[in-house]
Amino acid sequence: MLKFSKRTSHKAGLAPGTLVHIGEKMTDEVVIRLIDYDRENLREASLQAVEEALPLKESPTVSWIDLVGLHDTEVIAEIGNTFSLHPLILEDIAHTGQRPKIEEYDELLFVVLKMIEYSPKHELSSEQISLVVGPNILLSFQEKEGDVFNGVRDRIRKGNPRIRRLGTDYLCYALLDAIVDNYFLVMEAIEGKIEDLEEELLAGPTENTLHEIHRLRRNIIFLRRSIWPLREVVNTLSRGDFPQISEETEVFYRDVYDHTVQVMDAVETFRDVISSMVDMYMSSISNKMNEVMKILTIIATIFIPVTFVAGIYGMNFEFMPELGWRWGYFAAWGIMLALIITMVIFFKRKKWL
Amino acid sequence: MLKFSKRTSHKAGLAPGTLVHIGEKMTDEVVIRLIDYDRENLREASLQAVEEALPLKESPTVSWIDLVGLHDTEVIAEIGNTFSLHPLILEDIAHTGQRPKIEEYDELLFVVLKMIEYSPKHELSSEQISLVVGPNILLSFQEKEGDVFNGVRDRIRKGNPRIRRLGTDYLCYALLDAIVDNYFLVMEAIEGKIEDLEEELLAGPTENTLHEIHRLRRNIIFLRRSIWPLREVVNTLSRGDFPQISEETEVFYRDVYDHTVQVMDAVETFRDVISSMVDMYMSSISNKMNEVMKILTIIATIFIPVTFVAGIYGMNFEFMPELGWRWGYFAAWGIMLALIITMVIFFKRKKWL
Amino acid sequence: MLKFSKRTSHKAGLAPGTLVHIGEKMTDEVVIRLIDYDRENLREASLQAVEEALPLKESPTVSWIDLVGLHDTEVIAEIGNTFSLHPLILEDIAHTGQRPKIEEYDELLFVVLKMIEYSPKHELSSEQISLVVGPNILLSFQEKEGDVFNGVRDRIRKGNPRIRRLGTDYLCYALLDAIVDNYFLVMEAIEGKIEDLEEELLAGPTENTLHEIHRLRRNIIFLRRSIWPLREVVNTLSRGDFPQISEETEVFYRDVYDHTVQVMDAVETFRDVISSMVDMYMSSISNKMNEVMKILTIIATIFIPVTFVAGIYGMNFEFMPELGWRWGYFAAWGIMLALIITMVIFFKRKKWL
Amino acid sequence: MLKFSKRTSHKAGLAPGTLVHIGEKMTDEVVIRLIDYDRENLREASLQAVEEALPLKESPTVSWIDLVGLHDTEVIAEIGNTFSLHPLILEDIAHTGQRPKIEEYDELLFVVLKMIEYSPKHELSSEQISLVVGPNILLSFQEKEGDVFNGVRDRIRKGNPRIRRLGTDYLCYALLDAIVDNYFLVMEAIEGKIEDLEEELLAGPTENTLHEIHRLRRNIIFLRRSIWPLREVVNTLSRGDFPQISEETEVFYRDVYDHTVQVMDAVETFRDVISSMVDMYMSSISNKMNEVMKILTIIATIFIPVTFVAGIYGMNFEFMPELGWRWGYFAAWGIMLALIITMVIFFKRKKWL
Amino acid sequence: MLKFSKRTSHKAGLAPGTLVHIGEKMTDEVVIRLIDYDRENLREASLQAVEEALPLKESPTVSWIDLVGLHDTEVIAEIGNTFSLHPLILEDIAHTGQRPKIEEYDELLFVVLKMIEYSPKHELSSEQISLVVGPNILLSFQEKEGDVFNGVRDRIRKGNPRIRRLGTDYLCYALLDAIVDNYFLVMEAIEGKIEDLEEELLAGPTENTLHEIHRLRRNIIFLRRSIWPLREVVNTLSRGDFPQISEETEVFYRDVYDHTVQVMDAVETFRDVISSMVDMYMSSISNKMNEVMKILTIIATIFIPVTFVAGIYGMNFEFMPELGWRWGYFAAWGIMLALIITMVIFFKRKKWL
Repeated sequence: MLKFSKRTSHKAGLAPGTLVHIGEKMTDEVVIRLIDYDRENLREASLQAVEEALPLKESPTVSWIDLVGLHDTEVIAEIGNTFSLHPLILEDIAHTGQRPKIEEYDELLFVVLKMIEYSPKHELSSEQISLVVGPNILLSFQEKEGDVFNGVRDRIRKGNPRIRRLGTDYLCYALLDAIVDNYFLVMEAIEGKIEDLEEELLAGPTENTLHEIHRLRRNIIFLRRSIWPLREVVNTLSRGDFPQISEETEVFYRDVYDHTVQVMDAVETFRDVISSMVDMYMSSISNKMNEVMKILTIIATIFIPVTFVAGIYGMNFEFMPELGWRWGYFAAWGIMLALIITMVIFFKRKKWL
Repeated sequence: MLKFSKRTSHKAGLAPGTLVHIGEKMTDEVVIRLIDYDRENLREASLQAVEEALPLKESPTVSWIDLVGLHDTEVIAEIGNTFSLHPLILEDIAHTGQRPKIEEYDELLFVVLKMIEYSPKHELSSEQISLVVGPNILLSFQEKEGDVFNGVRDRIRKGNPRIRRLGTDYLCYALLDAIVDNYFLVMEAIEGKIEDLEEELLAGPTENTLHEIHRLRRNIIFLRRSIWPLREVVNTLSRGDFPQISEETEVFYRDVYDHTVQVMDAVETFRDVISSMVDMYMSSISNKMNEVMKILTIIATIFIPVTFVAGIYGMNFEFMPELGWRWGYFAAWGIMLALIITMVIFFKRKKWL
Repeated sequence: MLKFSKRTSHKAGLAPGTLVHIGEKMTDEVVIRLIDYDRENLREASLQAVEEALPLKESPTVSWIDLVGLHDTEVIAEIGNTFSLHPLILEDIAHTGQRPKIEEYDELLFVVLKMIEYSPKHELSSEQISLVVGPNILLSFQEKEGDVFNGVRDRIRKGNPRIRRLGTDYLCYALLDAIVDNYFLVMEAIEGKIEDLEEELLAGPTENTLHEIHRLRRNIIFLRRSIWPLREVVNTLSRGDFPQISEETEVFYRDVYDHTVQVMDAVETFRDVISSMVDMYMSSISNKMNEVMKILTIIATIFIPVTFVAGIYGMNFEFMPELGWRWGYFAAWGIMLALIITMVIFFKRKKWL
Repeated sequence: MLKFSKRTSHKAGLAPGTLVHIGEKMTDEVVIRLIDYDRENLREASLQAVEEALPLKESPTVSWIDLVGLHDTEVIAEIGNTFSLHPLILEDIAHTGQRPKIEEYDELLFVVLKMIEYSPKHELSSEQISLVVGPNILLSFQEKEGDVFNGVRDRIRKGNPRIRRLGTDYLCYALLDAIVDNYFLVMEAIEGKIEDLEEELLAGPTENTLHEIHRLRRNIIFLRRSIWPLREVVNTLSRGDFPQISEETEVFYRDVYDHTVQVMDAVETFRDVISSMVDMYMSSISNKMNEVMKILTIIATIFIPVTFVAGIYGMNFEFMPELGWRWGYFAAWGIMLALIITMVIFFKRKKWL
Repeated sequence: MLKFSKRTSHKAGLAPGTLVHIGEKMTDEVVIRLIDYDRENLREASLQAVEEALPLKESPTVSWIDLVGLHDTEVIAEIGNTFSLHPLILEDIAHTGQRPKIEEYDELLFVVLKMIEYSPKHELSSEQISLVVGPNILLSFQEKEGDVFNGVRDRIRKGNPRIRRLGTDYLCYALLDAIVDNYFLVMEAIEGKIEDLEEELLAGPTENTLHEIHRLRRNIIFLRRSIWPLREVVNTLSRGDFPQISEETEVFYRDVYDHTVQVMDAVETFRDVISSMVDMYMSSISNKMNEVMKILTIIATIFIPVTFVAGIYGMNFEFMPELGWRWGYFAAWGIMLALIITMVIFFKRKKWL
């Protein structure tokens, strides 16, 4: 289950700007990958030490430094020193309980995002991804290895002209786009789950159905809270307020923005559909209860009166004329059958049978 | 059932701007129809190849090129080349999972809309319609053949003075108007359905009634999500921010805007009415249950005590004075009848009988 | 029941601006009434032909032309020609499914409003009223004869100084004010209905009560949707954006605006109260059910155990020592009475009796 | 119960600006009190005729004229003439169904407010208070005598330096503050009521509890609607748009604004708490029903099977071997006890006992 | 339980600006602590009299005067005199029923905040903290001793370079940050509580579960109302409208703002989750009831018919052929067993067994 607090409380009381990793350790080793490219050249490398990246600061090529694993705060601090990042940026990178946001520090853009994964068992988990976008350097920070950025890497490698020609702003867009596309996968999985549950509701829900609906609803609540700020971030980027983003790239940001709005729409729609499902579940229980009650009522209403008749003739009074009659027993049967038939007709009329 | 995702996931990981058709193939062949007109002249043709349209770019007449069938991305790409459309426009045309939107690319307006159909079986389906509006060329892209644009074509053919005199901005308005008018048909069908369901609710709802209400509600939820952005699109168009739209035409856009607001109002109203219907359904079940319980209670309350009396005199004690009495049996009957009458009066007082 | 669609669909496919009457025919004959006045003079007439109004266009007096009956589109077209109204104005006048709105066409203001009637049987019905306000001509269009404008006519006739001194802007205000005042009557009728229903809820609701609540709620939903745009219209008028409205008159528009806000407030309040009433109804049913169940439980719990005791001594075993006892029968009675008393005490403690 | 309409309908059809008293007559006689003061001097008087106030118009002292009783429209009209108030001001003063509002007429501020009283029987009632604030005259209009302004009068009498030094703007603030402070009393009374009801809910609610909740909710709905516009009024005053209010006084208006926001907050909180209470009530009924059903089920499930056993041996077959057995009767008892014990254990396991 | 009103009513009727302590007395003695520092020097002292602080007004060092205990209004008045604070500031400090807010008085910023504590028994309590920020003096007012500011004090003592270098604006930020961090602790405790309750809901809720949910919901409602204005306060501070806050510090305020937004998000999420939990609880009761009913129905439906059969043969008719049959008794058993088995199969089919 997604949690609000990633042990944030451990932090309370510390001086602001203190570099502490808050979150689960999702990977053993810290990996730093470098892709350095321009229109003609491409260099890929795995950095052992952060200082190796120092010369890139001055080079005109686009350098994408991708760090996986946030638990080693020393590495983060080193990167901070190397690229002179504000202490609050470093703090936010290491503290994985951030809300998606965008901030401008001088010529740098700092973007925090959430990557959502929806496991086959319908568990949501989220990973924080931070991007620092400078004039020709883009730093990305992930909690664990994932394949979501591989498509971008491939396009760079294969020499896709647009990505090779444009700067860090387009690279940042490409990463954003990959992350938002990933949300679509989650939405489809949830939509599939909703359809399964709707079929269960029609076929006859069990108590487990409700628990699943509750779990889904909870997931939707969490998703909603994390997509709203994402939408805001992308909107800010697409509005063209940042000199870091060229006009040519802006139209692409508008495209990602459209996508986040679609995701948001889906979440809102799901929310409404689920609340309609809860209503259905509730009335399905009531309907079942109604049926149970009907069975009980039919049985009781048919047999209680005739049992009474039988009781009458089970009495031991000395003087009960009917008992001596030749056809008394059969007359009693007749009365009882008549009662039963009356009741059955009554229930037929009520359409209970 | 309308679905959020038109297999959007297939796209995740592709480079942005890649031209992939996402959506169902709704027609076998791609048809390209041309209507080229000005105040005096009119030419209709069915284009075999996109290049045939090339000379129209320079001609001062209004050329409406209507493409039906989006599965052949090559044709779309060709059109893109011929009229130098931005790759993102082409991508959006082919990807039928768009949200209604409007975008400006230099002197072109790009509008994406949804056409809704409501089948007699109360199934909603939607078709994406894209319009590219240039100074004297209007490109329209539909997923399948439909008769919604026929009225516009007829007006052009019959030489309606306004449409023949004004430019692509008015043609675009005429198409928009045809699409929005179509929403009214859907709204009326839904209103009819709501009235049917309300009658069912009054007459005595079954479990099926709830499923129908749920289905309707789901449809309304989807409609709502698709009309909101439509309203935004038409509003943007009617506000007069675009130089492509002449002042004379603007007033017509304001008129369509009024219509979309009316549709929106209807959707909101339906939403409220349906949620009131769910309440009615719920309490109708409870009322039924109440009735079932009353029958059971009446029967049990009348017969259980008298059965007890009969049980008393069915006991086999050797010394039971009443059993020897001459009128004992009839006295027992008297007691039992008295009990029954008391109960009946009690229930009459409670107005249960 | 108010309906969203006044057979709007009949219109789909027609060219915009086509003059078709959409709505019920509420009156047989079209009546055109003229009141022409200034500070000193007053002329009332019933026009046979629209052309008779032509000279008024140039006259400096205030001319109020009131047309009742919209089914004869020719008359409307003629008026359009005479006063050179935009085709969209005429279309909106004839199409009674409009939303309240205000539009400015050059020096003309075009206002569409809804008049609501609430019949003694608690049925809402609405009539469309359109006003065209020119420099010294005011055209009003009604669907049927009504007495709501009589007060205004009387004031003109009696020479009320303010109305006779000021121009069409004040006349327009007076008509608006009459319409909004009419809403107050509807609100009071609804409030009365709400109070009746609340008393029913306290006294003991029946299934009919819920249907009435549902009907009321539906009416409120419709009212709400029609008052929101009315409020907007009056707000626009009172903000002083229109040169047609003199500063002296503006303060009166602000006053009507206050009234529409009050009506809106009432509608919102009613909505909340009704939703609280539904809750009350629901729990009232549950309470009733609880009572039914209690009766059943009391009867069953008292008599089932003693019937069992009677059953014991109704067994035919040859060797049952109690049966031979002298006081066996009375002992059995004792046991049974003890059981009954225990149960009664138990229920007294539970406060069920 | 607070009512939306104070017989407003009586007014429909009258010319605007007609002076009619709408509302209950809450006092017999009209009383006009004058307090005229500056830093050094203080004069209190009870005016017999409005004209006595005429000289005050020119005097530089602060004159507060407080009129109690609105049913005599002639007095109001006279005041209007004396101080040349706009007819719409007079109409609003006499018509007690106003919404709180603020209006500027030349150099005058016209403020309408509602004073709320919450009787010990938890009935809300409201009184309309109108203030007209001129450069050195403040007119206040109340429906009935009340002690809420006494504090202000005392402060003036005791020579509180701030009130004696500052002008009508501060006096107006002092009156506003007194009215808003009064809302706090109402809020506390309601909070007390909520706490009582919550205790009832925990202890075991009756049907009356729900009716009380409904009544409270209705009151809250009405309060909410009357505090929203109050907040707006005070906000407008504190924003510093009015030249009538000196900068020195503005900070005090900001303080009242804070208070109204707090009242608003309280109302919203109460609304949420009450809706949570309704949920509690609903499930408390369900819980009770559950308990009733359990008792019935326990009794029925224990005794129905054993009664059946007793029934078996009550049959009169000639050949029933068990009947002749020496220990048959005791064996039957054994079976029955075993059944009873099994059932009891079963219910213990289910934790129903 | 948090209460809206801290006996605010005691105040109604007093002149505004009157210094009255409203709130509980949470500490016995008033303690005034001074920390006076600049980059090199640090002086800590406990002040006996307010006048000792007088020389600090002129000194260029940062002086933080922390007053604990608000019940002694004389001390507060003295501070007010010493530092010439506006009477409304003093009133707000002493009246602990304030809403979080920020106000600017000339060169002073006045901030009111709420500190929330969540006891292990899940009781919320709140303490009001006021800050007055001047050019080189910061006054803080607390209701009781707490350890939340200790971290800040430690950082000053340990010579944290940032806090020692920057002015009162940074100190104010540090205090704010400490308070907001404290909210995170509360959120985590609440989240823990929610998870406990969710487990209870899955395992089988009791009536107490609902009371706990209600209590939690009530707490959330109160928290929500107190965090909204906090968010507003911090937002105002971070927007850079105040000259008192240097640009260097602003970025830190933005950071606190992010944190308050996160807290707000958590509260909203909890609200949604809790409302989903109420639904779960409701349907869990219904499910239980369903189960109870099923047991009753199974038992009744199995035994009522067979008891009827036994009743038949308990009748005392003289002529009942079956009674004389050799295998009559066993045939009766056969019928009864057949009935029982039929019922069991029926219930198995319905999946009730």
